[in-house]
Amino acid sequence: MELEAVWWENNDGEAAVGYVDQRALPHELRRERARNVETVVEAIATLAVRGAPAIGVFGAYGVALARSLEADDTRFQAAAARIRAARPTAVNLAWAIDRMLAAGASLEEARAIHDEQRAVDSAIAEHGAGLLPSIGAILTHCNTGPLATAGFGTALGVIVAAHEAGKRLHVYADETRPLLQGARLTTYELARAGVPVTLIVDGAAAATMREKNVMAVIVGADRIASNGDTANKIGTYSVAIAAAHHGIPFYVAAPRSTIDFTLRDGAGIVIEERAANEVRAFAGAAAAPQNVNVYNPAFDVTPGRLIAGIITEYGVARPPYEESIPDLATRPAFGLLAR
Amino acid sequence: MELEAVWWENNDGEAAVGYVDQRALPHELRRERARNVETVVEAIATLAVRGAPAIGVFGAYGVALARSLEADDTRFQAAAARIRAARPTAVNLAWAIDRMLAAGASLEEARAIHDEQRAVDSAIAEHGAGLLPSIGAILTHCNTGPLATAGFGTALGVIVAAHEAGKRLHVYADETRPLLQGARLTTYELARAGVPVTLIVDGAAAATMREKNVMAVIVGADRIASNGDTANKIGTYSVAIAAAHHGIPFYVAAPRSTIDFTLRDGAGIVIEERAANEVRAFAGAAAAPQNVNVYNPAFDVTPGRLIAGIITEYGVARPPYEESIPDLATRPAFGLLAR
Repeated sequence: MELEAVWWENNDGEAAVGYVDQRALPHELRRERARNVETVVEAIATLAVRGAPAIGVFGAYGVALARSLEADDTRFQAAAARIRAARPTAVNLAWAIDRMLAAGASLEEARAIHDEQRAVDSAIAEHGAGLLPSIGAILTHCNTGPLATAGFGTALGVIVAAHEAGKRLHVYADETRPLLQGARLTTYELARAGVPVTLIVDGAAAATMREKNVMAVIVGADRIASNGDTANKIGTYSVAIAAAHHGIPFYVAAPRSTIDFTLRDGAGIVIEERAANEVRAFAGAAAAPQNVNVYNPAFDVTPGRLIAGIITEYGVARPPYEESIPDLATRPAFGLLAR
Repeated sequence: MELEAVWWENNDGEAAVGYVDQRALPHELRRERARNVETVVEAIATLAVRGAPAIGVFGAYGVALARSLEADDTRFQAAAARIRAARPTAVNLAWAIDRMLAAGASLEEARAIHDEQRAVDSAIAEHGAGLLPSIGAILTHCNTGPLATAGFGTALGVIVAAHEAGKRLHVYADETRPLLQGARLTTYELARAGVPVTLIVDGAAAATMREKNVMAVIVGADRIASNGDTANKIGTYSVAIAAAHHGIPFYVAAPRSTIDFTLRDGAGIVIEERAANEVRAFAGAAAAPQNVNVYNPAFDVTPGRLIAGIITEYGVARPPYEESIPDLATRPAFGLLAR
């Protein structure tokens, strides 16, 4: 893979988790190394590494790193708990940490999680590509490419697979305030993949659907409840409402590990609120009065009834999600099939 | 009035049109002087002066300035035409220039337009204040305050009037990318007026409506067609769709001069597309790959059917707008009543 988001390093016995600091993109492809647990936690909390599946893979390597550094089991468990708590909404992180702990926190298990992520992404791309039009405009929000999953991407993986299969797509990418993952990362990744892309401000999504004849919307997810309610980057709910208003199918692409089968609906999803300064400014440029009140939820919840299909590695789940999603819980682990 | 957007100056026989360079706000209240037509045109085109009614008043003073500088009538007419063409979507500008030309381009006529704007704003505020809840959250998009109208504001004038009448409102202000008029100007003006305000990113509008129990949305307008279709800042259409989805009334506040009675519907409204760099950067900080394609319409058109009421100086026009709007064309000029 050309654009690797996270990886394991071991130079002369000094272990590290490598990662792309995504905050520096698109201006610079800055590769960093986390040599201790604090750097792993900080990279997740500050969004240097972001995207729910990528955080899961990164956290898994982080637990392997913690194990290699810490002989004392109590301190190791505390380190794993700190990594697990670095971001509250992404269920993949907790899932990956729990799996690492159950498997003795070995590097082999972290590599397996990473390999499985690639296999899962490939399967999602294959299942999803058929849902996109043969020719026409589509729209996406936030970033769901290789950087976001440490694999091939979820929604962006679907788009790239459809493009490589010969579909003639034009992608409108929401810039995705406040952290501009769409402007900085999605346009960068699509351009690298040779997919035609046009950047818009988030507020232009509804007008673009109407004026540019958007035929499908596809996004990723950070957490999905058993009825299809989906937490994803703030702004997703707004896009889903606009898609419904225009009769445009709205798809979610996400690995099964994103589904929280213990949640009956989206009301149980904890929404992380982030710092006011993310909205007051961007990259150091102030845009608002210094002390203005800010409401800055990192995610919003799109009701399952606005979602035409949820694309996982097992296929496309369709409404009613109360039936199709619990069914996914019964499938055999994908990793075992893929290896 | 404390916060004057534009004014006439005459120091020792040297005439000028004064204005606040709104691009410097909220960091600096920078007052400038236009001493020639080129500066007037540039101030409008670069959005140093913005807001449809404020542009109209500013353009009127600009025509008076042009007349005082230019004895040759052909050259004066060309100068007025340049001012008239400085921005294509705002109908108030063309309306004000035409009125100035019909009245001999006198300073007295420009002052009358300005005085009438204040009277119109007061009447809009009075008619609209009753539509807002006695207590609760409301949401607005872009900037429609004193800076936008050179009077008391349209939508923001309504909000401030309701606040001063004792209503306990909490305003959620969309930041309004790409030029951030909401973050820079609306929060600044509401804070000056003592109205509680919280800033959100545009993508958070739908989630805020649901999570914060928004009870009404009120915005301004740049051009309104005879069926109520309303061109306003990009993102307005998205907000209107989200309001409809949540059953929240969506109001437009605008002077009659914003209505283009010659347009049957919004399909005839010319939408200005602005420079890609407005989207590629955020408050001067680069945010996207340098050469990425951008679609940057300055406005979008909200269908009249999504609008619960259009508040003008004559009262609240209600659906069906095909009847209530043409009726407004028959009313006597408001300025004559107000003086």
